[in-house]
Amino acid sequence: MSEVWKKYQEENKERFLNEMMDLLRIPSISAKSENKADMKQCAEAVKAALLASGCDKAAVMETGGHPAVYGEKIIDPSKPTVLVYGHYDVQPVEPLELWNTPPFEPTIRDGKVFARGSADDKGQFYMHVKALETMVHTNTMATNIKFIIEGEEEVGSPNLGAFVAAHKELLKADVILISDSSLLSMENPSLDTGVRGLSYIEVEVTAAARDLHSGTYGGAVANPIVILSKMIASCHDADNHITIPGFYEDVLEISADERELINKAPFNEQEYKDEIGIKELYGEKGFSTYERTGIRPTLELNGIWGGYTGEGAKTVLPAKATAKISARLVPNQSSEKITKLLLEHFRKIAPPCVDITAFEHHGGEPYGTPIDSKGYQAASKALETTFGKTPIPVKGGGSIPICSVLENELGIKIIFMGFGLDNDGLHSPNEKYNIENYYKGIETIPYFHKYFGE
Amino acid sequence: MSEVWKKYQEENKERFLNEMMDLLRIPSISAKSENKADMKQCAEAVKAALLASGCDKAAVMETGGHPAVYGEKIIDPSKPTVLVYGHYDVQPVEPLELWNTPPFEPTIRDGKVFARGSADDKGQFYMHVKALETMVHTNTMATNIKFIIEGEEEVGSPNLGAFVAAHKELLKADVILISDSSLLSMENPSLDTGVRGLSYIEVEVTAAARDLHSGTYGGAVANPIVILSKMIASCHDADNHITIPGFYEDVLEISADERELINKAPFNEQEYKDEIGIKELYGEKGFSTYERTGIRPTLELNGIWGGYTGEGAKTVLPAKATAKISARLVPNQSSEKITKLLLEHFRKIAPPCVDITAFEHHGGEPYGTPIDSKGYQAASKALETTFGKTPIPVKGGGSIPICSVLENELGIKIIFMGFGLDNDGLHSPNEKYNIENYYKGIETIPYFHKYFGE
Repeated sequence: MSEVWKKYQEENKERFLNEMMDLLRIPSISAKSENKADMKQCAEAVKAALLASGCDKAAVMETGGHPAVYGEKIIDPSKPTVLVYGHYDVQPVEPLELWNTPPFEPTIRDGKVFARGSADDKGQFYMHVKALETMVHTNTMATNIKFIIEGEEEVGSPNLGAFVAAHKELLKADVILISDSSLLSMENPSLDTGVRGLSYIEVEVTAAARDLHSGTYGGAVANPIVILSKMIASCHDADNHITIPGFYEDVLEISADERELINKAPFNEQEYKDEIGIKELYGEKGFSTYERTGIRPTLELNGIWGGYTGEGAKTVLPAKATAKISARLVPNQSSEKITKLLLEHFRKIAPPCVDITAFEHHGGEPYGTPIDSKGYQAASKALETTFGKTPIPVKGGGSIPICSVLENELGIKIIFMGFGLDNDGLHSPNEKYNIENYYKGIETIPYFHKYFGE
Repeated sequence: MSEVWKKYQEENKERFLNEMMDLLRIPSISAKSENKADMKQCAEAVKAALLASGCDKAAVMETGGHPAVYGEKIIDPSKPTVLVYGHYDVQPVEPLELWNTPPFEPTIRDGKVFARGSADDKGQFYMHVKALETMVHTNTMATNIKFIIEGEEEVGSPNLGAFVAAHKELLKADVILISDSSLLSMENPSLDTGVRGLSYIEVEVTAAARDLHSGTYGGAVANPIVILSKMIASCHDADNHITIPGFYEDVLEISADERELINKAPFNEQEYKDEIGIKELYGEKGFSTYERTGIRPTLELNGIWGGYTGEGAKTVLPAKATAKISARLVPNQSSEKITKLLLEHFRKIAPPCVDITAFEHHGGEPYGTPIDSKGYQAASKALETTFGKTPIPVKGGGSIPICSVLENELGIKIIFMGFGLDNDGLHSPNEKYNIENYYKGIETIPYFHKYFGE
């Protein structure tokens, strides 16, 4: 079977790449209202691709927010069904000036496709579309396949839960397969066994009714940037433990065995530092880098602004300062609970000289998948077949908020089979996806269906 | 004499106002390179106004930066000469969305002209132009008058020192008169006896070579916003004393008498708070509000930015974060020394996991003027004549960096005779200048020349 697949993919590889790049040209930024029409256009393009690649039916479906795209190829209702989840929406592209080529003009350099969404997640979910095409054209399908490609992952999937609840029969499947994560490396293939959860809040500190002259009022009126900085600074102690009371309350003790397994994954400190251009590792005392990103919750500042940020100097005492703050959560923590905790904490620690407006952005629950399940074993075998090595089970640091919702509504487990690399620059300028990884994914996915269908 | 002046000013008051508003229409923002042509146009407009108002000669003069405008009316070389200093450049206008009417479309509401530069300093220096016209047309000049109206005050007058040094003979005078400050109120006229100095730096904290995904790297890589916040937070202790070693070293002990004088100025806490919309007074422990803004040095955050600052949420771990930081200085402190101290301090307190780029913007030395000088006495008498009350001597909080330069180069004292109000919104959205104050200035200035010429 592998020869048939290989031949078909080899003959069509250029087209497979060009089709993916066409999808990258659509600026489907879900966070920005100005891109609403682009979102619609992208959803239609995904639907067309599903139909052209072998789905019997496909539809752009309303969700209350940006639409989701559904597609299916049912070969035999008695066979297992795999539900492929992906998302066609992408992150904002700022700061634009740091992109070497425009984010929505996909450019190939050095074997990589540079564009927003190349790895997260258009390039990755499109591997499944081309894997479907491979199996349909070679008449080798071993499972039924359903697709749910949503348009709100990057804003926390606020409508997908209700959508899934309303379409349980349509989405009925035996396992959910997601490619929206990374391999340790091409030499060290891996499978994520979970994702961290997310809480995300925005805090605005207002000290005065308007911007003031820093000479006339400086020294006599609270400076909101200083106040906000003090609030932020107070959230980590000298060991980088988070000091917010109750933050770690629900975090489970990790066994020595599990920590050992995590730390078995190959880690080259110098390569890690060089790849992202950092001078030193930095993080919570008492934990390794993989533990810090895999099994420990974190608190990050994602954005801050206030006062004059233009060219030159302005002697202003700003009226307000604002920060975007998020926490990554680990199993047994609740996004809802931590979000509430964060909102209350920032309201509480603000001094009486300022007003606080704090509200939440999207969150998502942490998620874990057992490695002894049929789905994980099928994925592990598929990677072993194409990489020649058993993949290492690892804890992913990122969040896919919809995971727990999908499992709860559909009652089935999720398998994370990502083909990205940590250096893909997700959410960053110059996001890229290696062409080699794209093809490797298309090559590997049919084996998952083969082993899962057995 | 007062009747002659009053009559002339009454007959021409509408034109006086319209001419000033025409000047406000030119977006002469010195900090922004895109406004270079506007700067030139504004300088030419000032020159034309000086000639039309009675100057014998006027010229737009190159300075190496934005041009300065010189003008003079010499009636008798044996009489005293007053050099009027002002500036035609203005502050940037961001945040634009907070302006009720466009900053360069002067609008009259409620007896006030709203526009950038209305109080700082176009409306204020133009009072001197119209006072000159009044005296010329009524043939009542008691002194020679020279004008130097510069175009770089809001960026720290980087070229005026050299310009003045190169034109000492041209600018030779007996006193310098500046209207670029405020009265306590119309009921409590006052004269500033000094201005604070300024040091201004920018600090950029870089933690990684590019923005990173906060899920993949969060917890394992330093967050530059957190690092910068901790650095900022460390600069003030719980009593709001500045903790930077050596910062207060050169600050002179203020005598109990002087502090008593400062605190004699009428201060209504509730009115002060209501006017700028603050909930509580805030500042250095052990000092009153007027002491905090008049005789104490301060450290302010003028701007901060880093990471994602757009709509919605982005789970980014930013590569860098930046802050604009300034200090107001009091007599005997040196701007150069404090700037160096600040730069070194921020470089020193940065942890080894980040790179620091710190550089200086413009600074200026603090300045004081004695109240027993002939100039101060003439100004005091002038205000007493038109306000019916002896003005209160006060310490101004703002900075006019060129003061010490002017005094050093020309060997004469500076008199601050400002007619603005603290609520004029200098450097803020909706800057305004009360029309009543504009006319009061034009009415008062001729008396200064009269008393100074006696």
